[in-house]
Amino acid sequence: MNELWKKNCRNITPYVPGEQSKEQDIVKLNANENPYPPSPKAIEAIRNFNSESLRLYPPADATPLKEAIAACFGVDAENVFLGNGSDDVLALAFQSFFNSELPIVYPDITYSFYPVWCDLFGIPYETKPLNEQFRVRLDDYKAPNGGVVLPNPNAPTSIGEGSDFIRQLLEDNRDCVVIIDEAYVDFGGVSSVPLTKEYDNLLVTGTFSKSRSLAGLRIGYAIGSKALIGVLEAVKNSYNSYTVDSLSIAAGIAAVKDKAYFDSTIEKILATRTRLTNELRALGFTVAESSANFLFVTHETRSMKALFDYLKTKKVFIRYFNLPRIDNHVRITVGTDEETDILLKEIKAYLTEESI
Amino acid sequence: MNELWKKNCRNITPYVPGEQSKEQDIVKLNANENPYPPSPKAIEAIRNFNSESLRLYPPADATPLKEAIAACFGVDAENVFLGNGSDDVLALAFQSFFNSELPIVYPDITYSFYPVWCDLFGIPYETKPLNEQFRVRLDDYKAPNGGVVLPNPNAPTSIGEGSDFIRQLLEDNRDCVVIIDEAYVDFGGVSSVPLTKEYDNLLVTGTFSKSRSLAGLRIGYAIGSKALIGVLEAVKNSYNSYTVDSLSIAAGIAAVKDKAYFDSTIEKILATRTRLTNELRALGFTVAESSANFLFVTHETRSMKALFDYLKTKKVFIRYFNLPRIDNHVRITVGTDEETDILLKEIKAYLTEESI
Repeated sequence: MNELWKKNCRNITPYVPGEQSKEQDIVKLNANENPYPPSPKAIEAIRNFNSESLRLYPPADATPLKEAIAACFGVDAENVFLGNGSDDVLALAFQSFFNSELPIVYPDITYSFYPVWCDLFGIPYETKPLNEQFRVRLDDYKAPNGGVVLPNPNAPTSIGEGSDFIRQLLEDNRDCVVIIDEAYVDFGGVSSVPLTKEYDNLLVTGTFSKSRSLAGLRIGYAIGSKALIGVLEAVKNSYNSYTVDSLSIAAGIAAVKDKAYFDSTIEKILATRTRLTNELRALGFTVAESSANFLFVTHETRSMKALFDYLKTKKVFIRYFNLPRIDNHVRITVGTDEETDILLKEIKAYLTEESI
Repeated sequence: MNELWKKNCRNITPYVPGEQSKEQDIVKLNANENPYPPSPKAIEAIRNFNSESLRLYPPADATPLKEAIAACFGVDAENVFLGNGSDDVLALAFQSFFNSELPIVYPDITYSFYPVWCDLFGIPYETKPLNEQFRVRLDDYKAPNGGVVLPNPNAPTSIGEGSDFIRQLLEDNRDCVVIIDEAYVDFGGVSSVPLTKEYDNLLVTGTFSKSRSLAGLRIGYAIGSKALIGVLEAVKNSYNSYTVDSLSIAAGIAAVKDKAYFDSTIEKILATRTRLTNELRALGFTVAESSANFLFVTHETRSMKALFDYLKTKKVFIRYFNLPRIDNHVRITVGTDEETDILLKEIKAYLTEESI
């Protein structure tokens, strides 16, 4: 068979998402999903949607959803960009803004999609090591850079930084685009959206997949100056005109408007996070102070890989990364209180069993 | 204000999609949408969907939808790739397969997104002029090429080619990937999917936006050899893991399984297409023999731009392209019989008015 055509195919190592078990009755704490359902108003918007109109293309600019997000953040609809989940938004932003000969910079321990996008788009990059407490060292991020990407709070460390920190980062990087990835900010982090009014090279990205319980609908957004959003729109319209579908637009609008439900969900998750943090520490684990909906957990004497494997046999799924510096850590999503009961019971069983 | 960061931003001319009027009561024949609603079973699948589960990510591989499409086409699920509309699928395919120094080739008159993707990804390309009857000249497509892209039926010409034609194209291009874009094939074209079993460098793309009335849900697919699909999956998983959302998967499965509804919708559209073709010809228009859900229409003595503008004032939207060789043509989507009545009435009024 002739296979010369293969020489022009891309050869690339893709991102590997968290395991999606097909088993039932599992406790799923491995993908940082929200344990609570979406806003009842979002569900109602889907139920009331005129499905016959699905024969038509969605509005390419999805203005009503942009307006709802803009109102939520106190910006204009022109400052809002929408995509098919924040991965789509971030991938487009990398393509749009990182076209320098200089490397872009981001932490050594962070979202593992960043190097994949750099490889895909041929973007030079350099990682900067977090310090021993897994905090970002500002001095490492002084210009000149081809761009800066920082999740705040960071993942999988769960640690967030305040607005003085981000402001200094921006002061140190006036000549490149700075992306702050706020996938987890609603769980107690400090949003940099207000800084987009002062720094027109700042792009803040967000998602409906975590705090708004709509991972299944794929809605991501970015907020920034009109100049930045204009470039993103042009690149997006050169790739795929209609990325957010009609049902997602309808449900997204309802979700973002339901502040009361949003607040009550966040409150419950933060209460469970405090409880889980305290109980794990009481069991001898080291738990980073989390500003996200997950915990970054290690233990001085126990193997976290063994804990991860043990919990899997008990149908409790958490996340383990076999990566330098964090290969004795696990990332545990904050679930419901009932899920937390099961998790803690199994962790205690593991500790007892291992001690025998 | 410091604007040095702008130097690293992409500067690109995006694709401009068909006008989406916000007016009500329009006759919308400008985006090749299906005039009939989606299958009642697809609507039921949305209504019965457990919306609480939207808090979870969709299955990244969307296997059940792949299986449904595979069963429909007589291939294996491993031969099926899914994306956020066929634009997403095509954009990923361009990135995945067109990495040659040699230019890829496609017709001078065709889908206007192709040059946009080439510009976005830095792919060299050459267009090959259609002949005077707007047919593809096979001799222009003889290797060596960096790749071949051909919509079949072609748009906006509406003209389809048979499988002998495509087989010859494949015989002439064994060393590069050949993409046949079958967005419109269900309206009487001949699908090349069976040829994917013989030619492992053939990728056939399709969409749920036209024949399956689901433009609002963004479902596109590609069918090809396991080798081709594997490359596409790796590139897709390097871009965005979850492109097809959970509701789209559920509705897509129901739609593709409802063959009876699909057949009856196609039958109605083809009957209306025949009627509209005949009536337009009787009015003196030249209408290409269409294998799609739209007509490619011109007139020896009348201005099509003027007709387009006139119809817009009557709230009848068709598509006009101000492009070389076809600047006196319009593209008219085949609507319902009622829409066709209004269209023909207004065209007659225009012809009368212009004659006065």
